[in-house]
Amino acid sequence: MNHRDSNFIRACRGESTDHTPVWFMRQAGRSFAEYRELREKHSILELCRTPDLAAEVTLQPVDRLGVDAAILFSDIVVPLLAMGVDVDIKEGVGPIIGNPIRSVEDVDRLVPLVAEEGVPHVIESVRILADELKVPLIGFGGAPFTLASYMVEGRPSKDHALTKSFMHSQPDAWRRLMDVLADSITEYLRAQIAAGASAVQLFDSWAGSLDADDYNAHVAPAVARIFKGLSDEDVPRILFGVATGEILGDMAATGPDVMGVDWRVHLDSVRSRMPETITALQGNLDPALALAPWEVLEAKARSVLERGGGRAHIFNLGHGVLPSTDPGVLARLVDLVHTWRT
Amino acid sequence: MNHRDSNFIRACRGESTDHTPVWFMRQAGRSFAEYRELREKHSILELCRTPDLAAEVTLQPVDRLGVDAAILFSDIVVPLLAMGVDVDIKEGVGPIIGNPIRSVEDVDRLVPLVAEEGVPHVIESVRILADELKVPLIGFGGAPFTLASYMVEGRPSKDHALTKSFMHSQPDAWRRLMDVLADSITEYLRAQIAAGASAVQLFDSWAGSLDADDYNAHVAPAVARIFKGLSDEDVPRILFGVATGEILGDMAATGPDVMGVDWRVHLDSVRSRMPETITALQGNLDPALALAPWEVLEAKARSVLERGGGRAHIFNLGHGVLPSTDPGVLARLVDLVHTWRT
Repeated sequence: MNHRDSNFIRACRGESTDHTPVWFMRQAGRSFAEYRELREKHSILELCRTPDLAAEVTLQPVDRLGVDAAILFSDIVVPLLAMGVDVDIKEGVGPIIGNPIRSVEDVDRLVPLVAEEGVPHVIESVRILADELKVPLIGFGGAPFTLASYMVEGRPSKDHALTKSFMHSQPDAWRRLMDVLADSITEYLRAQIAAGASAVQLFDSWAGSLDADDYNAHVAPAVARIFKGLSDEDVPRILFGVATGEILGDMAATGPDVMGVDWRVHLDSVRSRMPETITALQGNLDPALALAPWEVLEAKARSVLERGGGRAHIFNLGHGVLPSTDPGVLARLVDLVHTWRT
Repeated sequence: MNHRDSNFIRACRGESTDHTPVWFMRQAGRSFAEYRELREKHSILELCRTPDLAAEVTLQPVDRLGVDAAILFSDIVVPLLAMGVDVDIKEGVGPIIGNPIRSVEDVDRLVPLVAEEGVPHVIESVRILADELKVPLIGFGGAPFTLASYMVEGRPSKDHALTKSFMHSQPDAWRRLMDVLADSITEYLRAQIAAGASAVQLFDSWAGSLDADDYNAHVAPAVARIFKGLSDEDVPRILFGVATGEILGDMAATGPDVMGVDWRVHLDSVRSRMPETITALQGNLDPALALAPWEVLEAKARSVLERGGGRAHIFNLGHGVLPSTDPGVLARLVDLVHTWRT
């Protein structure tokens, strides 16, 4: 199904829409009882790697919430499994890596991703979903820095100290790590597009822990390499990170079409920091607001919509849906977005 | 001893100095072997609450690093113990609260701090240090939002979801919580100044998790209340938080003299966001850089100094010293700062 004329894709392109489109990062997952039931029988990685189950979880929120796009249920570490990284996802903690990257030898042992061999289950999930969905499917991958932060630290980190130390102490090894990740993620996203994804989002969730100098010197080239590798693909490419206010212009210069931003920034002030190549903004309600009383949430959502300006804006949260979120509130929020100014 | 003419205090006042002064947040603590030895015999809270030990730990880095100021060894949760909060600090985790704040009744059970009764050990530590130190002593406290985030969550949190939910769902209870914390922290800081602290720093470490609207509506009034309560004190008052780029102007408007900023922002771009009431900036080398090779660290430190402009600038890290930091590197960094442009 061609979704070129859907509200979501049109908004990504900066074109007029019937209403502001909306979807939520992590819209599939722990906030849904059906998901929690599946999780009693399967690990997160099992769900990600079993096409029927990944598709089922992806679909759970779509009709229920009435969102304008689906996002593949997966985790950014899934392609790493096919690259020789010993990774597991520990409930309530996050990715745990058995063989962290600490040397150039560790980097050279990584196996560049070949999608058909390494992630056939992801390709199959995307095929099933592209066939079943009435809305566009967003494929996604982790950006090199964010993936590297898990691979180097071996686990989630608040300060990314080992990652930054590796970056500064072994710049050649770091560059090789960035390059192999960039090429593998390019391959990964191209495979999702070939299988039917109508857009892709690159999650550089932790890039905001870097200052502009380090981002530009050590990270931006790899992100730009991914977008260059996707330049012949006719789908919108979204780039997202948290606490990125000071590097938004630098991130935008790596070549995405759409910039996703967190709740710390005002969308109207973001537009002025963007190069002309950015066709739309995505965001940016604080996920914690979904736990607030409706009147508070409504006022804040309307403020986000106003600042978004009603064009070239995809409504979303400023980060993933919090597990304790009531899906009924998200459904009501979707209605609010869809009926705003119409 | 009057430190009015010290480089540190003069820089805080925006006055000329012999050299750019420098100290490090968390300069006392886990990076020192002598500290780790003490920790084998005493818990963190024992160290904080035993004047001789707190003074000893405070002094450890001062001569060794050659810094221009000492900061009292303590933890922002220390005054909470005297307010009826059941708090312990768990190694490698952070503060754990046995009786989290979830209702207005919980708030009303808090006992406003009376310093002489609640924290006599802190007053005594400051007295000892003011007597022994040849450099100014910085007293400190946690700001209401950051303290509340621990008190509501019950433990360190990445998303502060419960805290924000409490703030939005129970605004009256939240305001009472902010007020009792503001008054208690004012009392706490005044007591430290009376005992000999030459400056005070208010840590609103997690304020950067709020957008400007929420910061101004729900947090800034309590911070302003503290600075107003300190307005007759003739010591520089520093305000610091992490990831605060989007709210720096709002934070500065609450009334501090010096704004401490993290490494994400460029100091030269910060000056233009500041009201005239701000007499100096403090910061802002990424703490992870202290783990990098010296040439990388040196280049970055020089960049911070250049952007700081050599006047009305106190050199510091952009957040606390990481535990794995080599004190020898910090000492070398102090030398670099002291000899820059002289």
